[in-house]
Amino acid sequence: MSTTVRIACCQLAPEVEVPERNAELARAAIADAVAAGAQIVVVPELVNSGYVFESIDEVRASAVPADGELLQSWAQEAARGDAIVVGGFCEIAPDGRLHNSSALVDGDGVRAVYRKIHLWDRESLWFSPGEEDAPVLDTPYGRIGLGVCYDLEFPEFTRGLALRGADLIALPTNWPHNGEPPDGRPVLHSLAAITAYLSRLFVAVCDRCGTERGVEFEGGSVIAGPNGALRAGPVADRGTETIIGDCDLDRARDKRTSERNDAFADRRPDRYLAELANATGE
Amino acid sequence: MSTTVRIACCQLAPEVEVPERNAELARAAIADAVAAGAQIVVVPELVNSGYVFESIDEVRASAVPADGELLQSWAQEAARGDAIVVGGFCEIAPDGRLHNSSALVDGDGVRAVYRKIHLWDRESLWFSPGEEDAPVLDTPYGRIGLGVCYDLEFPEFTRGLALRGADLIALPTNWPHNGEPPDGRPVLHSLAAITAYLSRLFVAVCDRCGTERGVEFEGGSVIAGPNGALRAGPVADRGTETIIGDCDLDRARDKRTSERNDAFADRRPDRYLAELANATGE
Repeated sequence: MSTTVRIACCQLAPEVEVPERNAELARAAIADAVAAGAQIVVVPELVNSGYVFESIDEVRASAVPADGELLQSWAQEAARGDAIVVGGFCEIAPDGRLHNSSALVDGDGVRAVYRKIHLWDRESLWFSPGEEDAPVLDTPYGRIGLGVCYDLEFPEFTRGLALRGADLIALPTNWPHNGEPPDGRPVLHSLAAITAYLSRLFVAVCDRCGTERGVEFEGGSVIAGPNGALRAGPVADRGTETIIGDCDLDRARDKRTSERNDAFADRRPDRYLAELANATGE
Repeated sequence: MSTTVRIACCQLAPEVEVPERNAELARAAIADAVAAGAQIVVVPELVNSGYVFESIDEVRASAVPADGELLQSWAQEAARGDAIVVGGFCEIAPDGRLHNSSALVDGDGVRAVYRKIHLWDRESLWFSPGEEDAPVLDTPYGRIGLGVCYDLEFPEFTRGLALRGADLIALPTNWPHNGEPPDGRPVLHSLAAITAYLSRLFVAVCDRCGTERGVEFEGGSVIAGPNGALRAGPVADRGTETIIGDCDLDRARDKRTSERNDAFADRRPDRYLAELANATGE
């Protein structure tokens, strides 16, 4: 495990109806990031398809299998720098179901695919929710936990990745911009910062940008560290840009927070599990 | 349940060695807040004792029973305005053990006492951790969940209060100021805001202020609402001040976040409970 790892989040603006152009956009951004020395490269959610679909036919037209050319092209770029790529893509599974997925790819190919378990708004019209736990993968650069966008709003989910050992949560997003941010900071940035702080790990949010069919996106890519500070981003104009953070990921292995405290050892599962197991909150 | 509830957080600077003076400070602040129309008044953690103890004898000298004069004085002030008081106090239990506790008091007396289950740093030298779940209490102004300071750093804890129906988490704190806040905002404020946002409820943090025996405190009282925005605070000079927020607590009963989403119903306990039950995170 390296002491310092260079992480890049490639903020891009894919568009519906042009999956080939989107794929090339992602490939070129990954190539540039790897050339800039990035060891972990993250690209946005649904980077090959765009987001604001009008019909399931549009989704299906841009969906690709996990063993297809899209992720192969990421593996080829990863191989040039012994890098790892995490990115969101519109997946068609062998059983024909569509998923909002994230893949972790290295120079040898696809290491893992995670299918988003919390679907946001109209995503539930197009995609089947995942039925497998989000993976945490051991890599030469540290342990990487996967998640996609709305997953970040479930503290049980992110805490779970942390407890399974994630040093970094790599989170492709397509975060709609919803008006003025409270307190001058987009909620996405505070979410990333506090998620990192609470479990003393790193969170790399790679967001999309631009406006698609009237939906304005946040363009809120940031990399947050274990003390809740941003290590990279945000992008000043919320536009297309790759942010790069050199992160001491091994810092995430130390959960001590004072001479007598440890963010994990201080947990009291005996005192709060019953309500978490209650599915409805009623 | 009223539509709008006036919540006050009385940011104060108690001091060790002068418990009577501290008690009067708290009583007077509660009286002023009730006179200003506050229906829920929160005072800081360990408001009767101060925080930076040098010996257990100091702790014991300021500890009071839950049925003693301190909480009676809060009940008397509460009765003047049909208000509720939540405050932190240094408690000696019937069995002689010392606790860092929070009480919810109304005009009729003490409704509940919560003994902090996550102890911060040297608190573990003086206090026994609580062995009971933090309560959520139904009141005429809404359902109030109790917690104290460091509890806020455990998303399982705050989520648990939310799932048990809390509209408001009332959180007395003694938050040490630890250097420059990341990104220009104290982590305490982001924690309050994101805790409120994730479970779509209100969080009222009543912090202490001042410097005690060389320890500088944050003076970071804030009231955050379900959209992650601050409804009151922070105090500009981080000094003694009562912040007041008029909050539509019934907003916390509606967890819908889009036409198709609900912050609670969208949870997937089947996918993330196993790791949360793991006490060590290993």
